[in-house]
Amino acid sequence: MGSPVHRVSLGDTWSSQVHPDIECERHTQSFNVERLTNILDSGAENTALRRKVENIIHSDPKFSLKDNYFMTQNECYEAAVRRKFHVQIIAKRLGWLDNSPELYYAYRALSGELALNIHDIFLKALRSLGSEEQIAKWAPLCKEFQIIATYAQTELGHGTYLQGLETEATYDAATQEFVVHSPTMTSTKWWPGDLGRSATHALVQAQLICSGARRGMHSFIVPIRSLQDHTPLPGITVGDIGPKMGFDYTDNGFLRLDHVRIPRENMLNRFAQVLPDGTYLTHGRLQINYLSMVVTRVTLIGGEITPILQKACVIAVRYSVIRRQSHLRPSDPEAKVLDYQMQQQKLFPQLATAYAFHFLASNLSEFFYSSYGAIVNLDFRTLPELHALSAGIKALVSDLCSLGTELCRRACGGHGYSKLSGLPSLVTRGAAACTYEGENTVLYLQLARFLEKNYLQAQASPDSASQRSLPLSVAYLTAPDLARCPAQKATDFLDPKLYTMAWAHVAARLIKDSVHHLQTLMRSGTDRHEAWNQTAVMYTQAAKAHCYYISVKNFTETLEKLGNEPAIQQVLKRLCDLYALHGILTNSGDFLHDGFLSGTQVDAARTAYLDLLPLIRKDAILLTDAFDFTDHCLNSALGCYDGNVYERLFHWAQRSPTNTQGNPAYEKYLRPLLQGSKAKL
Amino acid sequence: MGSPVHRVSLGDTWSSQVHPDIECERHTQSFNVERLTNILDSGAENTALRRKVENIIHSDPKFSLKDNYFMTQNECYEAAVRRKFHVQIIAKRLGWLDNSPELYYAYRALSGELALNIHDIFLKALRSLGSEEQIAKWAPLCKEFQIIATYAQTELGHGTYLQGLETEATYDAATQEFVVHSPTMTSTKWWPGDLGRSATHALVQAQLICSGARRGMHSFIVPIRSLQDHTPLPGITVGDIGPKMGFDYTDNGFLRLDHVRIPRENMLNRFAQVLPDGTYLTHGRLQINYLSMVVTRVTLIGGEITPILQKACVIAVRYSVIRRQSHLRPSDPEAKVLDYQMQQQKLFPQLATAYAFHFLASNLSEFFYSSYGAIVNLDFRTLPELHALSAGIKALVSDLCSLGTELCRRACGGHGYSKLSGLPSLVTRGAAACTYEGENTVLYLQLARFLEKNYLQAQASPDSASQRSLPLSVAYLTAPDLARCPAQKATDFLDPKLYTMAWAHVAARLIKDSVHHLQTLMRSGTDRHEAWNQTAVMYTQAAKAHCYYISVKNFTETLEKLGNEPAIQQVLKRLCDLYALHGILTNSGDFLHDGFLSGTQVDAARTAYLDLLPLIRKDAILLTDAFDFTDHCLNSALGCYDGNVYERLFHWAQRSPTNTQGNPAYEKYLRPLLQGSKAKL
Repeated sequence: MGSPVHRVSLGDTWSSQVHPDIECERHTQSFNVERLTNILDSGAENTALRRKVENIIHSDPKFSLKDNYFMTQNECYEAAVRRKFHVQIIAKRLGWLDNSPELYYAYRALSGELALNIHDIFLKALRSLGSEEQIAKWAPLCKEFQIIATYAQTELGHGTYLQGLETEATYDAATQEFVVHSPTMTSTKWWPGDLGRSATHALVQAQLICSGARRGMHSFIVPIRSLQDHTPLPGITVGDIGPKMGFDYTDNGFLRLDHVRIPRENMLNRFAQVLPDGTYLTHGRLQINYLSMVVTRVTLIGGEITPILQKACVIAVRYSVIRRQSHLRPSDPEAKVLDYQMQQQKLFPQLATAYAFHFLASNLSEFFYSSYGAIVNLDFRTLPELHALSAGIKALVSDLCSLGTELCRRACGGHGYSKLSGLPSLVTRGAAACTYEGENTVLYLQLARFLEKNYLQAQASPDSASQRSLPLSVAYLTAPDLARCPAQKATDFLDPKLYTMAWAHVAARLIKDSVHHLQTLMRSGTDRHEAWNQTAVMYTQAAKAHCYYISVKNFTETLEKLGNEPAIQQVLKRLCDLYALHGILTNSGDFLHDGFLSGTQVDAARTAYLDLLPLIRKDAILLTDAFDFTDHCLNSALGCYDGNVYERLFHWAQRSPTNTQGNPAYEKYLRPLLQGSKAKL
Repeated sequence: MGSPVHRVSLGDTWSSQVHPDIECERHTQSFNVERLTNILDSGAENTALRRKVENIIHSDPKFSLKDNYFMTQNECYEAAVRRKFHVQIIAKRLGWLDNSPELYYAYRALSGELALNIHDIFLKALRSLGSEEQIAKWAPLCKEFQIIATYAQTELGHGTYLQGLETEATYDAATQEFVVHSPTMTSTKWWPGDLGRSATHALVQAQLICSGARRGMHSFIVPIRSLQDHTPLPGITVGDIGPKMGFDYTDNGFLRLDHVRIPRENMLNRFAQVLPDGTYLTHGRLQINYLSMVVTRVTLIGGEITPILQKACVIAVRYSVIRRQSHLRPSDPEAKVLDYQMQQQKLFPQLATAYAFHFLASNLSEFFYSSYGAIVNLDFRTLPELHALSAGIKALVSDLCSLGTELCRRACGGHGYSKLSGLPSLVTRGAAACTYEGENTVLYLQLARFLEKNYLQAQASPDSASQRSLPLSVAYLTAPDLARCPAQKATDFLDPKLYTMAWAHVAARLIKDSVHHLQTLMRSGTDRHEAWNQTAVMYTQAAKAHCYYISVKNFTETLEKLGNEPAIQQVLKRLCDLYALHGILTNSGDFLHDGFLSGTQVDAARTAYLDLLPLIRKDAILLTDAFDFTDHCLNSALGCYDGNVYERLFHWAQRSPTNTQGNPAYEKYLRPLLQGSKAKL
């Protein structure tokens, strides 16, 4: 099982042997780990291809992530550009195509620590919003890296609220150009990746002004740096936004435009265009501008955010069978911390969530690609659901991945605070995901508006025809509902139908309560906008419950398809049960509130939940092995396959600049303090 | 109001004017902010002294924190040593005594970003565990910095579980020395602050072995570096543990001891000693070894952990009246984000918590100092309660401060992810507090054992005499309890007696349920240790509820004492109400579980809670101003007193090494990629 790269010695003699405390966890396998890996990879051929790519990447020292934790921001950036450069060389040599699985797996092997990632977002936006002509012109330049492109949306003063963006693109019919301009300090573009030090072109989101009328946000390709010597072009002020909590390898930048002129053809015009005389034509709806954000979100959920939690689980669970602390019984040797209920209670819900989100991301991605073709061909019927669903799922997944990664980090005690554990960088990456590509609170509220609308529609015409017209993800709003949960004993809570129904009940009730609260406020004279604001806390809660319901339902549906893999189905069902029950127990107030569950039933659910922990315990290492992350990609002193935690931590620390660069503070301050204290002070 | 240092221009022209959006928040004051600051400082004379110290520190460029966010770990460390050195010079010059309020305020002004902080922990441990003779010998050396001392407890393989520590100190009667030794890789001391590059002496926690018997953990003063040239002494391997999530300014270190000999007198012997012939005498209980941890915890709660959340609140609330996003009504200008219910719901519970913990820390500190004298004189009666209470409160405070600081950071959107906001460093500091000085889960379980014991005692002898003998913090376990909450409408939930009683009810019920669950398991044949493990999740929940009850009760008692300040009492009561109700709503399942609250009552509590938000909104800036943190100490582009957020962010970013150090990656990789793509790739 596993490929050689997972057991790679990293050149250290002490790592040639697997630690017996983790070795014994792999002795008896209740299921075929390799087969589960194949399922996660969507097929054994993908597993093989992924490992082939990983072997190429990891056997080349140019891609080493080894000293990452010792680097300054500048050094991280340079290393990330170097890696990108060499990936491009390999891709050319081996014929890896743009958007190919090989490139995706290379990205995965390097944990995404590559520069010029926004280049791909530019390409996706171009393909979504550009005409065929524009795609034909710019896509090859991009793919061949004859330009380096970024996507410049966020401004110093505005982020998620796109209509508030201040950058202006004013059409000048005399020259058939747009004049792109930053009118205020707050309109400075701020945060775009690859902008600070790399990009030559930016896809600038700006308010279109033509023939004196403001036409809302559109996308403009603006050259910003010389293709000759990389200096900023006239009218451009560009630079890096400085130190951040994470993402040292990305040069997030700022951009100010001082009446920069670009040709009319540089406005992406699949859905809207400006004719030479300044006439404005639109072929789509304004919301189409959100399409490129939807594309990005869907890609991020599975490709960037979920793996953060998966890796954190791998690291924390592996460490927890090596770490020993205190005694379960006085006469026993010190126990593995994973044998404590508290440690299981910290880690296993995260492991279950990591699996739940893997399947959720796959499913959302399928839905997206099945809708995408229609949308770019101006059939917008699925767009509202796609937008709402991708917004809500992005918010749920990033919220819980961020929370879970930090819980995994903390479950590793002090060593989880060392960057060498790999966990701090996962935590800071997860935290970012709650904000970028739509701040989560705003996303939940966007979903809430969709839920409100569909709830009202279901209420307005409760005949079966209109119910059938509800989008699939909200069809439960019209399904028959029980007022009381029928569960009578703990094991009743292990029925996927029962807990899916419980989640549907709670989500539907919270949506109903929110709508009623809003309506009550409006009936008492509050205007709609103020009433919406005063219901925001309730709506957010409802949207979260809806997303959780979707994720539970999706997990149970995934299980149903695994009938030909009973052993894997059984072990994954435990995770699915745990995921659903953990959610119920964490939010038990919502289930008790209207008497759907009684206190006794909550106790039974808790019993079912706690009883799952020791069952999952037996398979825990195998379930984390199945993600099949290489040691190189985990880059963790705590999480390597071989379990040699302490030796690795000790030896990695020796390489730190704090040990290799001398201590000038001694001569300057410590010595005077110690020796001259009486004389000098 | 406020001293000049709060409005300091930092040398920037654009900061000479206060932003009108924050200025107007300070126009009408419903209470005297200065008076509240005095209350927080425990007296106007303290406010005056604090500001005097702040002016001294902040007027001296040697103490600038300005470029902190741009520094490497080595540079941060050096700057922290430099600050400590100059603080010592000033202290000498101005006659600031060891442990004086002046030094405390200097530490606060510098946000604790000083080296050699563990020196003070060494001193505290020495005073708690050392004999008068030992104190007389070592304390002056320490105070004069003739030695630099650290406290070396945690090992690679063991942290919170002290009995598992492996370092050995074996008494050799022949030479009257202890042989201190690290027998395994995992026994390497790991994490002690100031150890990596600074300390000359370590107070090493080691298992005492004398006359062949193991006597448990004791404290030994071990010289580790030469006082002449700072090189490690024979038998010592010492260094820095490398990069961490935060605390770059501290040289957390590792230490290996190879049969290092120290004189018999170097074992701290207030409570236990080894006679020349190897006879072991003990004067106290083994638990006394925990006393120095209790001292440290109590100091940290008020001096280090709570201010993290306070500062995060100041930054996030100030930013939220400058940041505008979207419209509350279509015709209005863009709204301040603080006017949205969701933003209030994120920030105000944190603000309330910051106040709650300020008063909780003061109160715990008072209790501690009133008990300390007795304990060091061998009267241990209050030790169990002090230990349990300080453990639980440390866990609650660090948990909620860490969570709240991250919520504040996230509430600032993308800019909260910039280190220049000051929030990331607060978040990483808060996160550390959940692990150091006792991992929180372990602390909750220690408290739970105390609660279990007292619950059983109260049950065993329910007569009033034995009830009176219960420690004050658990006296509620025998108080009369209502089965149903009597609240009938929303405003009933604004009664401190009512919600304090509600918290007492829930805490007592959870303790009772946990004990009964444990007993049920044992009756069914599970042994006590296994039963305890299987009840750990429940006990942890009970311990948390107990701590929350203590904090609510403490807040209400603080309010009662403010009768002569009705305006301040009123505004703080809103925070107290919010704190209590936020806790109830977040844990509503626990209140609904046994029918203590009905769903209707939870709705009423939520109404009361939501109605408080706009009331607190009016005073929000004043409530954060009252903490009276200087701009220098906040070191935040988002949180300065003047509200010039965007200008500061823009100008600070220009100083980043990512903008000042050139871009070697261009010549090496980007140019070849762009220009030579066809030729080279």
